[in-house]
Amino acid sequence: MSRHVRVTTAVGCVAFACLVAVEASPPANLREKVERYVQQHQKAIVGELVTLLSIPNDSADQENIRENAALLREMLAARGFEAELLETQGNPLVYGERRVRDASRTVLLYIHYDGQPVDSSQWAQADPFTPVLRDGRLEAGAREVPGLDSLERFDRDWRLYARSASDDKSPIVALCAAIDALDAADVRPSSNLRVLLDGEEEGGSPSLVPAIDAYRDKLTADVMLIFDGPAHSSGKPTLVFGARGIAPVEITVYGPRFPLHSGHYGNWAPNPAMRLAQLLASMKDREGRVLVEGFYDGIGPVSPEEQAILDGVPDDLPSLMRLFGLAEPERPGLSLQEALQRPTLNVRGMSSAYVGQQARTIIPEAAIAAMDIRLVKETRARDMIQKVLAHVRRQGYHVVEDDPDDDTRALYPRIARIRARGGTNAFRTSPLLPESERITTALALVFGAAPVRIRTMGGTLPITPFIEALGFPAISVPTVNFVNNQHSANENVRIGHVFDAVVAMAAVLTM
Amino acid sequence: MSRHVRVTTAVGCVAFACLVAVEASPPANLREKVERYVQQHQKAIVGELVTLLSIPNDSADQENIRENAALLREMLAARGFEAELLETQGNPLVYGERRVRDASRTVLLYIHYDGQPVDSSQWAQADPFTPVLRDGRLEAGAREVPGLDSLERFDRDWRLYARSASDDKSPIVALCAAIDALDAADVRPSSNLRVLLDGEEEGGSPSLVPAIDAYRDKLTADVMLIFDGPAHSSGKPTLVFGARGIAPVEITVYGPRFPLHSGHYGNWAPNPAMRLAQLLASMKDREGRVLVEGFYDGIGPVSPEEQAILDGVPDDLPSLMRLFGLAEPERPGLSLQEALQRPTLNVRGMSSAYVGQQARTIIPEAAIAAMDIRLVKETRARDMIQKVLAHVRRQGYHVVEDDPDDDTRALYPRIARIRARGGTNAFRTSPLLPESERITTALALVFGAAPVRIRTMGGTLPITPFIEALGFPAISVPTVNFVNNQHSANENVRIGHVFDAVVAMAAVLTM
Repeated sequence: MSRHVRVTTAVGCVAFACLVAVEASPPANLREKVERYVQQHQKAIVGELVTLLSIPNDSADQENIRENAALLREMLAARGFEAELLETQGNPLVYGERRVRDASRTVLLYIHYDGQPVDSSQWAQADPFTPVLRDGRLEAGAREVPGLDSLERFDRDWRLYARSASDDKSPIVALCAAIDALDAADVRPSSNLRVLLDGEEEGGSPSLVPAIDAYRDKLTADVMLIFDGPAHSSGKPTLVFGARGIAPVEITVYGPRFPLHSGHYGNWAPNPAMRLAQLLASMKDREGRVLVEGFYDGIGPVSPEEQAILDGVPDDLPSLMRLFGLAEPERPGLSLQEALQRPTLNVRGMSSAYVGQQARTIIPEAAIAAMDIRLVKETRARDMIQKVLAHVRRQGYHVVEDDPDDDTRALYPRIARIRARGGTNAFRTSPLLPESERITTALALVFGAAPVRIRTMGGTLPITPFIEALGFPAISVPTVNFVNNQHSANENVRIGHVFDAVVAMAAVLTM
Repeated sequence: MSRHVRVTTAVGCVAFACLVAVEASPPANLREKVERYVQQHQKAIVGELVTLLSIPNDSADQENIRENAALLREMLAARGFEAELLETQGNPLVYGERRVRDASRTVLLYIHYDGQPVDSSQWAQADPFTPVLRDGRLEAGAREVPGLDSLERFDRDWRLYARSASDDKSPIVALCAAIDALDAADVRPSSNLRVLLDGEEEGGSPSLVPAIDAYRDKLTADVMLIFDGPAHSSGKPTLVFGARGIAPVEITVYGPRFPLHSGHYGNWAPNPAMRLAQLLASMKDREGRVLVEGFYDGIGPVSPEEQAILDGVPDDLPSLMRLFGLAEPERPGLSLQEALQRPTLNVRGMSSAYVGQQARTIIPEAAIAAMDIRLVKETRARDMIQKVLAHVRRQGYHVVEDDPDDDTRALYPRIARIRARGGTNAFRTSPLLPESERITTALALVFGAAPVRIRTMGGTLPITPFIEALGFPAISVPTVNFVNNQHSANENVRIGHVFDAVVAMAAVLTM
């Protein structure tokens, strides 16, 4: 226990102190060992990443996807994995298993190898698949560092620019480097390792759930670790225990069949824009509380332990508010982490006739609100949509799925079309579960400070249905830099984050 | 009185019966005399209209505007008017005066000779200034009637297609024909006549009010009659005693400086679309009553006499509702005419980010509502805008005129930009004034039925400031067909309406 106590003292935080009761096993000085290995193998690590980034990975580009998969299988095989391609209805999954002597548990490591489509014309470099090294951020005036292939040393603040540099190929290379580093130090992983590399994540991972039927044995584990996304904006090691889901809803309120002169018929013909405004306003109060009946059903209070986790996230809210130009959050006094624990009712767009120079003196024929409901674990997409439908009906609307016909118009004074198709549920692994405490402790021990723990991240993970279908806990370990242009032009990964990811990987492999 | 009593009996309506107490003087059989004259002079009347319509009249086309003015001066001079051009800061006013022996009162007759700009490519005919005669409505499959220049007889259902056919050149020709008919029948107008033909109405008549200073003597009268716009949809002779004004207002509610991810920040960053919806909803209740403080100040109850006038308008509301696809008006039970007696708060357009296929998972940076307030005589543009501003402030908003800067954003949780420039007031001449009863009785006597009396038409007359500045009663006498495509392509006037307008003109000239 002496080592544990030392770290606890060093961190000195209640949230962390409660975790060390769980036994975690990263060996002493692991960080130093792995960092030394990385220091000595910079060229090989960056070189392997450059090679991987040089193969285009738009999931629709099947020839190149196959090339990626073949290389990845070799990379895993070179690290002692029994590696193979698992064929699916879509792109192949790259799978590797490495059994560890005496290990009684199994960890499934999920990363994806496909990337967002590219529009080369928007990039500063000629080809998003010919990586370019720069001495900082492009937006800050960084310049290219020449001789990428022959460099021996890499500054931690340099950045590698290429599609999927951060989303999500560098974690694959960091994982391989971590295993190399452990092997070099003769440190055994604490668990059997199963690696699953997805080739369709940017398209919503449609083949993952169907793959469970075919490959359940290979996909079973005690815990799934997901390596994707940026670490917390503070730059500290981060664990994410849940993600909100999403249910898109579009509401159209109908007025006259065609726009009417606002003078000739104003006060007589109903105005659908005003009615939509009234309908939306009936759904949320001034402080941002959703008024749809049952919207928060099942969401209990956050326990003191969980509240401590929320409070421990070092969000710099004053800076965020300055950056966003906001004087106050939607509900004054609510922290960002608290806000993310509840479902949202977000109006993401609204439209009716014209504004500005195009405005006309009319009563519009319709008004549309595009909305998304962000879900938490207690609130399921299908239920929430039904609750919104019921709310709209209680406001006196006849709800339709298509534009109303003449008979419908003649019968119902208030008509709303509601379109709500699809949706992805939320997931949450309790940060108080033993698996959660184990990984938290491992990162804390290795880095000497408690990681940032995100109980629920605000956005949505498309692989949530896969997590639900597998049925064992999942935890996300995001490792790349917060500002990385993922999904857009000039995507990049900071070299220091790649190197630190190797340490983080080593920590979780030995936890 | 016997003639009056006969007509009252024929009409059998209370609203009309109350009018015959005012002495009106159209001679017996005026209608028959004028109709006979028109019958015998169809070719000349339509020919004069075709000649006038053949001169382009976009108010920016000064050369042709001058040609119109010159022709119009000649047309008036040929009817015994002392005719001249009154030069203004813009296009000339065509003015003519015809004194009548023993007449103790003066009538100012206002018509405009400019037209909306044309987009010839949208017209079914080669040139909107080369009139085409058709045997009905183009939309109903009407065909061209050949030999326009040589026809002797014109069917009442035929239509003449050309820019300004209905808006507003045919009333000029009808006026000239009415004077010809009266002269031919040796019937004297009952009043001195002053004719004022405006060349800038479609641009808001900017030169009219300034012209009063220069030409006040020529513009003074006991009553102004405005010949413009379509008769009531029922097709009956129509009088309009007032028009609502308009005050455009645009409200922009601000959210974050740029769109934020709806997952990462939903429930924490305020959503401007929802806030705009709440702000709009605070302005109007479910039954359409405006909740802005003082919005209806000064509007008294409608007297029983005026209510009878409103009730007497033969609006076919079930047909309108069917046409518009509405099951109920905004406030159930309110008639169209009742609705037009009050100011509106109309949302004419609304916009925030994207809807439909373009929708994105964001919290938008702003939301805009374009609105127009339709005014009645008791509610002035400037006051109403101040009331809306005060309402927005009472909802907790800091109101700005331009996009907020950083300091403003940091200080105020709720920021709204309000733009409200310009505006035109309403006018209303009481339909119970002696001048109003005189013209009502004249039309009733001549046509044998009470005219449709519109206490307040819903739309706005741009010459309202001119009416206000002159300070004597104004009444509008719309004579053209209800469906006439004015302001757009394929504008037309129905021949029967032109002929009936001659009768109506003769009636008001002898009232």
